[in-house]
Amino acid sequence: MKKALKVAVIGGGSSYTPEIVEGFIKRYDEMPVRELYLVDIEEGRHKLEIVGALAKRMVEKAGVPIDVKLTFDRREAIKDADFVTTQLRVGLLDARKRDEHIPLKHNVIGQETTGAGGFAKALRTIPVILDICKDIEELAPNAYLFNFTNPAGIVTEAVIKYTNVKSIGLCNLPIGTRMQIARLCDVELDKVYIEMMGINHLNWTTRIVVDGNDITNEVLSKVSEAKGVTMKNIPDFGWDKEFLQSLGALPCGYHRYYYMKDEMLQEQLESVEKNGTRADVVKRVEAELFELYKDPELAIKPPQLQERGGAYYSEAALNLMSSIYLNKGDIQTVNVRNNGAISCLPDDASIEINCVIDSQGAHPVQLQAEMTPQIRGLLQVVKAYEELTVEAGVHGDYEKALQALTIHPLVGTAALAKTLLDEILEANKGYLPQFNK
Amino acid sequence: MKKALKVAVIGGGSSYTPEIVEGFIKRYDEMPVRELYLVDIEEGRHKLEIVGALAKRMVEKAGVPIDVKLTFDRREAIKDADFVTTQLRVGLLDARKRDEHIPLKHNVIGQETTGAGGFAKALRTIPVILDICKDIEELAPNAYLFNFTNPAGIVTEAVIKYTNVKSIGLCNLPIGTRMQIARLCDVELDKVYIEMMGINHLNWTTRIVVDGNDITNEVLSKVSEAKGVTMKNIPDFGWDKEFLQSLGALPCGYHRYYYMKDEMLQEQLESVEKNGTRADVVKRVEAELFELYKDPELAIKPPQLQERGGAYYSEAALNLMSSIYLNKGDIQTVNVRNNGAISCLPDDASIEINCVIDSQGAHPVQLQAEMTPQIRGLLQVVKAYEELTVEAGVHGDYEKALQALTIHPLVGTAALAKTLLDEILEANKGYLPQFNK
Amino acid sequence: MKKALKVAVIGGGSSYTPEIVEGFIKRYDEMPVRELYLVDIEEGRHKLEIVGALAKRMVEKAGVPIDVKLTFDRREAIKDADFVTTQLRVGLLDARKRDEHIPLKHNVIGQETTGAGGFAKALRTIPVILDICKDIEELAPNAYLFNFTNPAGIVTEAVIKYTNVKSIGLCNLPIGTRMQIARLCDVELDKVYIEMMGINHLNWTTRIVVDGNDITNEVLSKVSEAKGVTMKNIPDFGWDKEFLQSLGALPCGYHRYYYMKDEMLQEQLESVEKNGTRADVVKRVEAELFELYKDPELAIKPPQLQERGGAYYSEAALNLMSSIYLNKGDIQTVNVRNNGAISCLPDDASIEINCVIDSQGAHPVQLQAEMTPQIRGLLQVVKAYEELTVEAGVHGDYEKALQALTIHPLVGTAALAKTLLDEILEANKGYLPQFNK
Amino acid sequence: MKKALKVAVIGGGSSYTPEIVEGFIKRYDEMPVRELYLVDIEEGRHKLEIVGALAKRMVEKAGVPIDVKLTFDRREAIKDADFVTTQLRVGLLDARKRDEHIPLKHNVIGQETTGAGGFAKALRTIPVILDICKDIEELAPNAYLFNFTNPAGIVTEAVIKYTNVKSIGLCNLPIGTRMQIARLCDVELDKVYIEMMGINHLNWTTRIVVDGNDITNEVLSKVSEAKGVTMKNIPDFGWDKEFLQSLGALPCGYHRYYYMKDEMLQEQLESVEKNGTRADVVKRVEAELFELYKDPELAIKPPQLQERGGAYYSEAALNLMSSIYLNKGDIQTVNVRNNGAISCLPDDASIEINCVIDSQGAHPVQLQAEMTPQIRGLLQVVKAYEELTVEAGVHGDYEKALQALTIHPLVGTAALAKTLLDEILEANKGYLPQFNK
Repeated sequence: MKKALKVAVIGGGSSYTPEIVEGFIKRYDEMPVRELYLVDIEEGRHKLEIVGALAKRMVEKAGVPIDVKLTFDRREAIKDADFVTTQLRVGLLDARKRDEHIPLKHNVIGQETTGAGGFAKALRTIPVILDICKDIEELAPNAYLFNFTNPAGIVTEAVIKYTNVKSIGLCNLPIGTRMQIARLCDVELDKVYIEMMGINHLNWTTRIVVDGNDITNEVLSKVSEAKGVTMKNIPDFGWDKEFLQSLGALPCGYHRYYYMKDEMLQEQLESVEKNGTRADVVKRVEAELFELYKDPELAIKPPQLQERGGAYYSEAALNLMSSIYLNKGDIQTVNVRNNGAISCLPDDASIEINCVIDSQGAHPVQLQAEMTPQIRGLLQVVKAYEELTVEAGVHGDYEKALQALTIHPLVGTAALAKTLLDEILEANKGYLPQFNK
Repeated sequence: MKKALKVAVIGGGSSYTPEIVEGFIKRYDEMPVRELYLVDIEEGRHKLEIVGALAKRMVEKAGVPIDVKLTFDRREAIKDADFVTTQLRVGLLDARKRDEHIPLKHNVIGQETTGAGGFAKALRTIPVILDICKDIEELAPNAYLFNFTNPAGIVTEAVIKYTNVKSIGLCNLPIGTRMQIARLCDVELDKVYIEMMGINHLNWTTRIVVDGNDITNEVLSKVSEAKGVTMKNIPDFGWDKEFLQSLGALPCGYHRYYYMKDEMLQEQLESVEKNGTRADVVKRVEAELFELYKDPELAIKPPQLQERGGAYYSEAALNLMSSIYLNKGDIQTVNVRNNGAISCLPDDASIEINCVIDSQGAHPVQLQAEMTPQIRGLLQVVKAYEELTVEAGVHGDYEKALQALTIHPLVGTAALAKTLLDEILEANKGYLPQFNK
Repeated sequence: MKKALKVAVIGGGSSYTPEIVEGFIKRYDEMPVRELYLVDIEEGRHKLEIVGALAKRMVEKAGVPIDVKLTFDRREAIKDADFVTTQLRVGLLDARKRDEHIPLKHNVIGQETTGAGGFAKALRTIPVILDICKDIEELAPNAYLFNFTNPAGIVTEAVIKYTNVKSIGLCNLPIGTRMQIARLCDVELDKVYIEMMGINHLNWTTRIVVDGNDITNEVLSKVSEAKGVTMKNIPDFGWDKEFLQSLGALPCGYHRYYYMKDEMLQEQLESVEKNGTRADVVKRVEAELFELYKDPELAIKPPQLQERGGAYYSEAALNLMSSIYLNKGDIQTVNVRNNGAISCLPDDASIEINCVIDSQGAHPVQLQAEMTPQIRGLLQVVKAYEELTVEAGVHGDYEKALQALTIHPLVGTAALAKTLLDEILEANKGYLPQFNK
Repeated sequence: MKKALKVAVIGGGSSYTPEIVEGFIKRYDEMPVRELYLVDIEEGRHKLEIVGALAKRMVEKAGVPIDVKLTFDRREAIKDADFVTTQLRVGLLDARKRDEHIPLKHNVIGQETTGAGGFAKALRTIPVILDICKDIEELAPNAYLFNFTNPAGIVTEAVIKYTNVKSIGLCNLPIGTRMQIARLCDVELDKVYIEMMGINHLNWTTRIVVDGNDITNEVLSKVSEAKGVTMKNIPDFGWDKEFLQSLGALPCGYHRYYYMKDEMLQEQLESVEKNGTRADVVKRVEAELFELYKDPELAIKPPQLQERGGAYYSEAALNLMSSIYLNKGDIQTVNVRNNGAISCLPDDASIEINCVIDSQGAHPVQLQAEMTPQIRGLLQVVKAYEELTVEAGVHGDYEKALQALTIHPLVGTAALAKTLLDEILEANKGYLPQFNK
C-alpha cells in the first residue's frame, strides 16, 4: 500500500473545496493524502486563491502534513496522481442561469441536471471532461477519476464509452437518502442498508433493511406522511400515499420533475418570478461564502457551507477513496458501467447502483428487488435520452441532439425539441467546440 | 390440407363485415371457407341481422358455397372452427365517445387506442377476450385467433400471457403503409418490401426496399415533402424533414400523438368543438352504412365502406389466413410474442414485426436495421405502460393501472393519472367486472 | 435480532458433526445457537448416538448453553428452525462404492460428484432433499437451508427450481482454495481476495488479489511449479505451466477429471487395484473415527477428523450462518440461483460465485474477469448435463437421464451412456422411487 | 436489376467446378451470369486448364453466352464481381492426408472438418480467406462472398469478425438433409420444410413439416429404423431409437463423430488400414475425374462427379445466388452472424440456421423449436472451440490454439491437446505464416 497519496481536485476553486479539505484532514490517519493539488482555470484565479488560502490555513491549524498546492497547470496536477476529482462548472453560474431560463421560457422545466437544462450542461461539459481524461490516460493511467460534475451520469457514460480512464461517478444523493431514512426511522445510520438502483438523479430505493429486517413498506408509508425527504435544492412536495405504494419503491428527489411535472413547473415559474432562477440564488450564496472564506482568521470549514446544497459530497468522495485505498469491500452506491447489472439497460450504459468497493474498484451487487415495469419504462426512456446526449456531446451531432430532446419526458415533442435545441446551441456557442467544427 | 374451413367472426354485426365477406368470396378457390359464422351479442341483434342478410345476398350473388350463419351462441360458432376473428367493441360507440372525451376534459389527447382512451378500452376489452379464449381452448384448441380488436397490441399480449390460444394480432396499418409507399414511389405494391418493427400503433418502418434496392432515405425525404402518409382517422400533419432524417425511420401515423402531441391536442380540441368526438363522426358514418346495407337490392360491398377508416382490414386478415392455410412462407407484419426478436423488450411482450407466415404460424424475421436509442426509448416506455395495463386489465389491479397511466408519455404525472383513472373506472364501471370483485 | 437460534442438522450422525459442533461452541458469543437438533434416519441410529453423545460432551466441557437434541423425527427438528443443514448420504457408503465402481468397469472415471458417479448420487439424493424441502416450506418457511450434500450444485439447482425454500449450496472448496493460495504466497488469509466463478466442483479462480494487488499471473506461475494445490481427496497431478497460462485462471481440483482425464483414469484404476475404491478408504477412516468418538473421555473434536477430506466444511457453514445472522455484508463463495450473474448460463441455474452475505441472503457480485471461451465452453456443457440431471432426478425421466450422460465430457457417447445408465438404475433401484412410478 | 452478372470462382480448378458450371447454364434465363472467372494459383495450373477447357465446352454446347475466363490473377477475377465463391484447399490433398493422419496416430478421430483435423485446416485456411477478403473490400465491396471452404463455420466466423465483406457460409448438408427426408417420407422435395439450427457440421433438424403437418416424431422413428441418412463421406452407423427420441431432433451426419465417437474411431482405424485415409481415397477419385475431364468430347458434367461426395454444392450455391439476385424471399439454411438468433451463443458467432434470402442478404427466422439442454450443451462447447480456433487462426495465438483443442470433445485433455497442436504446427509450418511472425 502506498504510504503517501497524491490527489488532484479539478475545479479546486469551487466553494465546496473546504468540505473535501476537511475530509482529508479528518481521515489523514487512515488515508495519508500528502499532496493535494487544487487546479483551476485562469478565469477562476480569484476564487482559487481565496479557497486555496483557506485550505492551507485549515491544514496548518489541523497540524497534518498535507501539502496544498494551487495551480493552473492541469497536467502538473494530474501527473502521477492516485485520485483525480472533478467539480468544475463549464461556463460558470451564468451558463447555469441560461440552462434554467431557456426551458422555462417555453413552459418546460428548467433544471441544472434534469431535462433541457441538464442537456445543455452535458454538451458543455463532455468536451472538457474528455480532455481531462486524455491527460489522465497519458500522465496517471492508474489513477481513479471521481466525477462529481453534473449531469454526473451522462458525463460518466461519456468517459466510460470514450476513454480508458478508471472512472466512478459520484453523487451525494445516495448517502443523503440513507441519512434521511435513518432520521425518519430514528436509527443509527450504520444500521440502515438500502438497495438503490437506476441512473444518476433518477434512482429508486427498492429495498430498505434496518437491523436485518426489510422495512421497505413501512418506510414508504412514513414517507408519504412526512415532508422533508428530498434534496435541499428540490421543492418539497409530498408524495401521495397510493402512488408510493403502487410504485413499490422510494423515488429520489429528482423524480418530482417527472411524476409531479406540472406542480414543479408551476413552482419554478413562481419562484423565478420572486427570486430569479436557482442560479441567481446560488450566486448570492456563493458570494457570501467567498466573503467568509476571505477572512484570514477562518481556518475551519464554515458551518454556512452545509446550507449550500451539496452536503455530504465530501463524505461520499472520501468514503469511496478510503474503501479503494484500504481495500475495504464495503458497499456504496456509485455510477459505473452497467455490464448487465441492470439487464434492461445497455451493457455500456452508466448506472447508479450498490457496489462492493475495494482496491480493484466498484463492482455492482446483484439486485434483489424485481425490476417492475413502472420503474423500467421511465428508466429506459431517460437512459435512451442520455445515450443520445452522450453522442451529441462527444460528436457535436445535431440529429442525435434533436432526438435526445424529443424523447425526453420533460420535452416530448419534435417541434419543441427543435426550438429548445436551437436556442441552447446559440446561447452556449462559446462552449461547444464539437458543434462548430 | 382440409378441404372445407370453418371461420367464426366474433362481432359479426360490425359494419366492417361486408369487407371480409367479400374477401372470402374472392379467395374461395384458394381457400374454401364453407362455414362462416357471424356471431354477436343480443344488444347487436339488429345490426347483425342487417349485415348478415347482406352477407347472404353477397354469397348468393357470387355463387360460392359459403354457408353464412348468424348466431348469438358464441360457443356454437367457435366449436371446431379453423379460424376465429374478433372485431368487437365492448360498450359500443358510446364507450368510445367517453374514451375520447374524458382525457380531453383534462387537456390530454383522447384517442381510441393511444393514451388514456386506449387504456380504458383495454380494461373493457381484456375480460371479454379472455372469456372468448376460454371457449377456444375448450372447443377449438387448434384454431388460430386473429385479434383485430383495439388496442390490438395490449389485447394480444393479454392473450399471449394468460391463455394457450394460438393467437396473432392484426392491424391494417402495416399493409396500408406499404400501399402508401408504393403510391409515393409510383411502383407496384409487390415490388415494395418494408421492415416494420415496434408494437401495434407504435411501429417504425426502418427499411424500405424497392425492387431489391434500399431506398429508405429517399422515401424519408419524399415523405417530409408530401402530405397524405397517414391513416384515414389521423390528422395529416406533415413531418419535419430534419426530424425524419434524425429519426432514421418512417414513423407510423399514430406517432403524431407523441412527436406532435401539442399540435394534435390542439387539433382535437378544435375538432371536437366543431364535429364532436371521432366517435360521434363514426356513429353518423355507421348509421349511413347500415341504411345502405338494408337495401335488399344491395349484394356487394358498397364502395362507401372504403371511406370508413378500416380499409384493408379484410385484406390483412385474408392474406394471413391464406398463408397459414396454404403454408405459403411469405412475410407479413403481425403481432406476436416477442421471444427475443426485439431484444430490448421482454420476451413475453407482444410486438409487431415482419414474420414468415406458414402452416405453423407466424415466425419473426431477424431485424436488419439497428435499434437506435431514439426508437428504443419511446418503444420501451410505451411497452412498459402496456405491460402494466395488461396486468390491470386482467386482475383489476388499481395500483398497476395508476402506474400505467403515470408513465404513459401522454399523461406523465401521478396526479393527472389518478384523476383520469378514477373518472375512467367510474364511467366504465358496467364493463369492468375485474375491478368490482 | 433473535437472541436464541435453532439449527437442524439433517444427517446429524455423520462423522463430520463434531466439526460443526466445535464451530457452534467457538462462535457461541456472536451467534447464540441454543437448540441444536441432530436428526438422522433409523438406519443411522448407531452412528447418531455415538456422535450425539460426543457432541453433548463437547458442549458440556465448553460450558456453553447449547441444547443438543438427537432425533429421528425430521419434522420436529425442522419446525421453526432458523437454519437447516443437510449432510446426508442416501444409500450410505455402499452406494458410493457402486458409484465409483460402475463407471470404472467401463473405463470411465468413477467419482463421487463428477461424471457418472455424481450422476447416480444426484438421482438418489434429489427426491430426499425435495422431501426435506416440503417440510421446511411447511414448518419453517423463513429458515435458510444450507445444502452440503453432493453433488451440491445439482442438488441446489433442484431446490431452486422445485421449491420455495431459501437455500444456499455450500462447499469447502472455495475456502480451501483461499487457504492454499495464502499458504502459497505466504500471507495472512484475510489479505487474500479471490474471485471464483463457475459451478460447484467446476469453478475457476479468475482473479487473485493480495493486499490490494492483482497477482493472478504470479500465482498461476507458482502453482504450475508447486504441488499440493488440490483437495485432499483428489490426486495431486501438477498443472502444466503453458496450460495454466493459456487458461488464464486457476482451475479447481476437480478440473483434473476433465483436463487430465486420461491420467486420472489411469490413477483410479491403479488405486482401486491397490486400495479399493475411495468409498472403501473412507469406510475405514470412518470406522476409525467412530471408534475414537465412542471414547467417553473424548470431549473435543479429535484432530484425526481433519484428515478426513472435508476440512473447513464447518468453517464454511459457520461463516455463512454468522454473516446472515449478523448481517455482515462480507463476501463468500456459495451456490445460488444465477439470475444473470454468469450471463452465458441460464437464469435459473445454480452457480458458484462470490456473493455479498447479509441478513437477506447471498447476492452475487458482478464478475470482474472476462468470461473467456475456454472457460465458457466447458462450463456450459457441464451445466447442460446438470440441467438434464435435475430433470431426470426430479421426474424420473429416462430420456433426460440418457442425454445427460451422453453429453457429459467424461462419458460422451450414446452407447456408453445407455450402458452406464442402465447399470446405475439397476444398482440403485431401491433408492429411485421417481423412476419406479 | 443488373442484366449481366460477374462471378468469380476462387479455386476454379477444383473437380467440383463442372457442377457449378452446369448450374449457371441451366439457370441462365433467370440469372444471366455473363462473366465466369475461374481463378486458381500457379500450383493448380494443370487442373485449372483441364477444368476450364471442359467448362468452355459445356457452355458452348449449351449455347448460352457465358464468358468463361481462366486466370491466376485473383484481383482481376474479383474486380467488380457480383458474387465470389471460394472452393479452395490450402495445401491440397496432401495437407488433408496429414489432417486425418495426425489425430489417428493418437487414437483421436481424424476428420477433415471436425476435431483436430478440421482445426489444422482452419489454421491453414483463415489467412488465405482473409487475404481474399481484403481484395473484395477493395475491388468489389458490394459483392457477396459465398464461402464453401471447410471448416465453413469457422472460416465464415473469421470473415464476420475480421472483415467487412458481405459473406454467407454454405454447405450441402442442409439441402441434402431435406432431400433425404423427402425420400424417406416419399414426398416431393418442395413439400418438405425443415427447421435446422446449430453450427456448420453440427446442426440439428428440430422440426420437420410436410405439407403443413409437423411430422418430426414420425421421421425420428423412421430414421432409427433406416440406414442411409448421412453424407456420402460419413460411415453409415444407424441411430438408436431411444437415443433419437430422447434427443428430440434429427442429428446431422457429423454428429456421429460425437455421439458415436468410439465406433467411428474404430471404423477409421480399420478403414485407414485398408484404404488409406479419406484423402487417399479422394485423390484416386479426383485423378479419375480429371482423366474424364480431359476428354475433348466431353461437354457435360460427367455423372461420376455425383459420386464424389459434394453433391448439391452447386445446387446450394445457385439457390442462394438466385434468391439474392431475384429478391425471392424464400428460406434456405446458411451460415451467418448470429445476432441473437440462437440466444445461447455469442452475438458475433457464425451459426447455421434457416434464413429468409432476398436482395439484402440472409435474415434468420426465429426458431420455433425450444432449445433443449442436450442440444445446447454440445453446441456451446463446440462453438467455444470454434471461437478459440478463429483467434488462433487469425492471430497465430498458441495459447488460444492449445485451449481450443483442450476443450474440443474429441480431444478433451490438456496433454493430448498439446501433443496434437505441436505436431500440427510442425507439419503445416509452410502454411501458417500467422504462427511464424
